[in-house]
Amino acid sequence: MSLLVIGSLALDTIETPFGKAERTLGGSATFISTSASYFTNNVRLVGIVGYDFPQEEINFLKSKNIDISGLEISETKKTFHWHGKYDFDLNTRESIVTELNVFETFNPLISDKFKDSEYVCLGNLHPAIQKKVVEQMSNPKLIMCDTMNFWIEGAKDDLLNILKLVNLLVINDSEARELSKEYNLVSAAKKIMKMGPQIIIIKKGEHGAVLFMNDLIFSAPAFPLEKVFDPTGAGDTFAGGLMGWLTKTNDLSEKNLKLAVIYGSAMASLAVEKFSLDGIRNLNYPQIMNRFSEFKKLTHFDEVSLI
Amino acid sequence: MSLLVIGSLALDTIETPFGKAERTLGGSATFISTSASYFTNNVRLVGIVGYDFPQEEINFLKSKNIDISGLEISETKKTFHWHGKYDFDLNTRESIVTELNVFETFNPLISDKFKDSEYVCLGNLHPAIQKKVVEQMSNPKLIMCDTMNFWIEGAKDDLLNILKLVNLLVINDSEARELSKEYNLVSAAKKIMKMGPQIIIIKKGEHGAVLFMNDLIFSAPAFPLEKVFDPTGAGDTFAGGLMGWLTKTNDLSEKNLKLAVIYGSAMASLAVEKFSLDGIRNLNYPQIMNRFSEFKKLTHFDEVSLI
Repeated sequence: MSLLVIGSLALDTIETPFGKAERTLGGSATFISTSASYFTNNVRLVGIVGYDFPQEEINFLKSKNIDISGLEISETKKTFHWHGKYDFDLNTRESIVTELNVFETFNPLISDKFKDSEYVCLGNLHPAIQKKVVEQMSNPKLIMCDTMNFWIEGAKDDLLNILKLVNLLVINDSEARELSKEYNLVSAAKKIMKMGPQIIIIKKGEHGAVLFMNDLIFSAPAFPLEKVFDPTGAGDTFAGGLMGWLTKTNDLSEKNLKLAVIYGSAMASLAVEKFSLDGIRNLNYPQIMNRFSEFKKLTHFDEVSLI
Repeated sequence: MSLLVIGSLALDTIETPFGKAERTLGGSATFISTSASYFTNNVRLVGIVGYDFPQEEINFLKSKNIDISGLEISETKKTFHWHGKYDFDLNTRESIVTELNVFETFNPLISDKFKDSEYVCLGNLHPAIQKKVVEQMSNPKLIMCDTMNFWIEGAKDDLLNILKLVNLLVINDSEARELSKEYNLVSAAKKIMKMGPQIIIIKKGEHGAVLFMNDLIFSAPAFPLEKVFDPTGAGDTFAGGLMGWLTKTNDLSEKNLKLAVIYGSAMASLAVEKFSLDGIRNLNYPQIMNRFSEFKKLTHFDEVSLI
């Protein structure tokens, strides 16, 4: 199976209480495809960068066996740039600079080679652009979509349109509440399911993620780390692990969706231990399997009777 | 084994967005001992009520096989009264009235009959009173303590003294941060362990609870309920289930502490589905075991290899 990933590629400047990284590789598509590359050799990236995008980062993506033939390189504009600063608790952040640059006029064209991708991961972008991608796909098995409060507030109709076309929505808790106008997350998930997606995953940051599918509710904690260096890209890394696992296994049972959530959580926990993309640039399988096993220790208990 | 429970008995007035209950049975010792009574027939209650405490509630406690010979009934003062009002999201509450009444001069004396209790549950009270109880016990196997921000701010030295004497501290996330001066909960738990307790359980409300013991970290979600009616007593009900299970099994292994946390969580989730104590007044074993099993579905996943 193959996984089409669309989203942003960025040069980010990130400030956390633990340090600063300038113009470092970022963007939703970068985190998603790098994370997914540990699960499948068939990741297909669609995106756009500017003339200032470092060749060594192109080489990095290639080294992960990511097919970058869908990566457009503008000769006249610069790469998308975001400068963010995190509070001491790493839970709130301020956007200091957002320069859209190449994204001002991005119009993704999916090549014939990519149109048959069975799995599609729509990283956070304007929902109208996400829709254009979906319309070009020939017969995908599962389409996952990410979004953010910015589109809920500013492009609600476009968002409702794309939601009708996707199978799986990954959304954070405050966005789920905003979109559904329900405070209770179970109620929120049920309401969002009526908007289209059959599967909802609500991300709760340091409190983990919750999967809603049919009548199943599955709760995965965030891995309890003593040192979180940089939460940038944690959600996208989660989505990449999740979709990478589904693409690898091609199994959409509840049982396998649970595993996808755990692999996504494991990847996200590895990502936040270092700055920016560094946490997932060079992982090996034992590191990932070790984190997976630790999730089991963290959550599993014996079956015992009270009587 | 037997479980000594000390804490408040109250007549609470509770307002939530879903209704109001006036002068209904409440208090930490009430929730703890009722919850524990489903696990052991050997719950010993120490507390004080006023002349206005309804006889039918005394009868209720007796009907749960709770030994109330340590319950003092004042002939001159009224029962402790708390009037609280919850916000629409049920996460924040305002104390409208707090009348200490009988608790102004409470000085708990532990009868010879109760002194040999192997398990001790110190509900939220002034830490100096908690200490007086501990000093009267002959040779307890495990002492659990609850506390609150009020004592962290107003009776820090007394709190640090009692922490040296207890084995297990149950504390909520904001209190753990305040007590340890650490934002990260893993760091907070490690720091609090150095203050005395070998086992720390951090309650995170709608996000569940985390157990820290030796090098083990175990995370239990809160049960995802669509309708939470009244969170009053959820933490005490959790503590009651936890301590009830430990008293029943008399097993302090990590494996069994995990189960205690799940039984505590199951009881708490049953409590918040109804007003005040109503959620746990009349439970049966299948209801509790059913909730326990649902926790397993909610958290367990298969073991699979990535490669």
